[in-house]
Amino acid sequence: MMKTRVCEVLGIEYPIIQGGMVYICTPELAAAVSNAGGLGQLTCITGRKDPDTLRANIRRTRELTNKPFAVNIPLIMPNAEQLVAAAVEEKVDVITTSAGNPKKFTSYIKEHGVRVCHVVPSVKLGQKAQEAGVDIIVAEGWEAGGHNAYDDVTTMVLIPQITRAVDIPVVAAGGIADARGLVAAFVLGAEGVQMGTRFIMTRECAAHENMKKAIAQATDTATVVTGRAFGPTRVLKNALAADILSWENQGMTAAEILERIGSGRSERALLHGDIEQGSPMSGQIAGLLREVTSVQELFDSILGEIRPVLEKAGKMLLGG
Amino acid sequence: MMKTRVCEVLGIEYPIIQGGMVYICTPELAAAVSNAGGLGQLTCITGRKDPDTLRANIRRTRELTNKPFAVNIPLIMPNAEQLVAAAVEEKVDVITTSAGNPKKFTSYIKEHGVRVCHVVPSVKLGQKAQEAGVDIIVAEGWEAGGHNAYDDVTTMVLIPQITRAVDIPVVAAGGIADARGLVAAFVLGAEGVQMGTRFIMTRECAAHENMKKAIAQATDTATVVTGRAFGPTRVLKNALAADILSWENQGMTAAEILERIGSGRSERALLHGDIEQGSPMSGQIAGLLREVTSVQELFDSILGEIRPVLEKAGKMLLGG
Repeated sequence: MMKTRVCEVLGIEYPIIQGGMVYICTPELAAAVSNAGGLGQLTCITGRKDPDTLRANIRRTRELTNKPFAVNIPLIMPNAEQLVAAAVEEKVDVITTSAGNPKKFTSYIKEHGVRVCHVVPSVKLGQKAQEAGVDIIVAEGWEAGGHNAYDDVTTMVLIPQITRAVDIPVVAAGGIADARGLVAAFVLGAEGVQMGTRFIMTRECAAHENMKKAIAQATDTATVVTGRAFGPTRVLKNALAADILSWENQGMTAAEILERIGSGRSERALLHGDIEQGSPMSGQIAGLLREVTSVQELFDSILGEIRPVLEKAGKMLLGG
Repeated sequence: MMKTRVCEVLGIEYPIIQGGMVYICTPELAAAVSNAGGLGQLTCITGRKDPDTLRANIRRTRELTNKPFAVNIPLIMPNAEQLVAAAVEEKVDVITTSAGNPKKFTSYIKEHGVRVCHVVPSVKLGQKAQEAGVDIIVAEGWEAGGHNAYDDVTTMVLIPQITRAVDIPVVAAGGIADARGLVAAFVLGAEGVQMGTRFIMTRECAAHENMKKAIAQATDTATVVTGRAFGPTRVLKNALAADILSWENQGMTAAEILERIGSGRSERALLHGDIEQGSPMSGQIAGLLREVTSVQELFDSILGEIRPVLEKAGKMLLGG
């Protein structure tokens, strides 16, 4: 076990969390991550988004691993209360809440012996999460894929500021996909990392083949944030994103744009492979990724590279 | 001298460059940075923006230091050719070009024995700068203050991608203000750092007292990028920025917005202290900064913290 509070609190060997990604966080992926020594994570936005589906997914994951794993529940879900209750009753090890007020469920979850992580995009919301009693803050920078905050605070500046402002452990998310990113996050003050896009590029991830190919071909400038005024979302640049940006620039209202977008766009890209008309959520680190590996290969690679990365930087900066 | 190619190429002791900031990069600031062992930098956008003013500033800097220093010349300046010629004739040590095609002047500058750095916001433009023959690439992330690129590639994701794509040394810029930021940049693959906002917070910087106060009071979410469609610029959130964003959201054209903004807004904030109606350019790292120090105190603090920062990360990640 690495000597970080994140490992102690979560009972995991390595402080590497698989982020909650809508539709593609299956029991198979979560179990593979937990079996490799990290923290796998289901989301309630997989399948039918109802408590029973979530229960089934938790039970299936439990069959595949005896290590701790998490469930991500965005608190804007209309049935958030039932989802939280279901996850607690199924005795999941960790619940990660996001997109809402951490005061609402943290006490309830903790009273039932479940650990709580809360995802925040800024120092102020980090402080509120600490006040609400969460165990760990996941501080997510602007470069992250999928749903983002309205402010564009990046990982590089968020981590040193939030770790100064709170006492509880901070996990860095956004822009991390290898040992360099992990070590940089620790240098900035984090005690763990959460990765999303990198886990799409694993064999265990249920994302459509087209999605993996699109990430493999992405450059550093391949993603864009749409919906800045009504729900910022980072996706691979495509026909749909170009349309949304053009509607935004024309001054169209959020309601008009949302009506044109309709529903099911994320599923369409992530599960059905329609990269152009779907919403292919991806972080900016996509440009670094070329290959699909197994989850175990990913862990082996990161863990094997930590020492060389630290030594190379140390040699340049300290000599010897 | 630290063992990085950036130090070797530029002939400096520490791989810390003071970024080119319009109006406030005076000979006094540049000389203080160079005397501390970094690379100080004048800009051609100080005073009258003509070759003679630049010559006078270079000569004045030479009186204050016998160490190498640089001049930043944005290539969109209408008189860029004369400015480059003046800097070369005055035998400045380094010219940093930005905002334009590096093919235009790199050969000319290098033939006269002057080193060339070129500022880029993406891998593609980094590759073009290398092809043009520049000595060093300054890779600037989205969190940087002042004029930014159209794409929002952050430092955390830009550095590992650009250092994989080019062979020449890369300096990281954007979001760096202390030893943690510097070490993180090196871990990600950089061989030097450039800082802007942190140098505003030095006693030697000519920025107005109101500007320094505004940065000292800033939070992590205190900055915003305006002009996304016609010239992205990161500033402290203020009345002017709110107006520009509202005009943008109304679908107003770039020409209409630029006419309303008028000229002289940066000078108004940076030199005259009008934080609300001026353009108070600042990076996102402003939220980390609380105090004004001397340039020498800044260098002492960063250099003294490198070893503890590396050791703390190493202890957590490698144990022992």
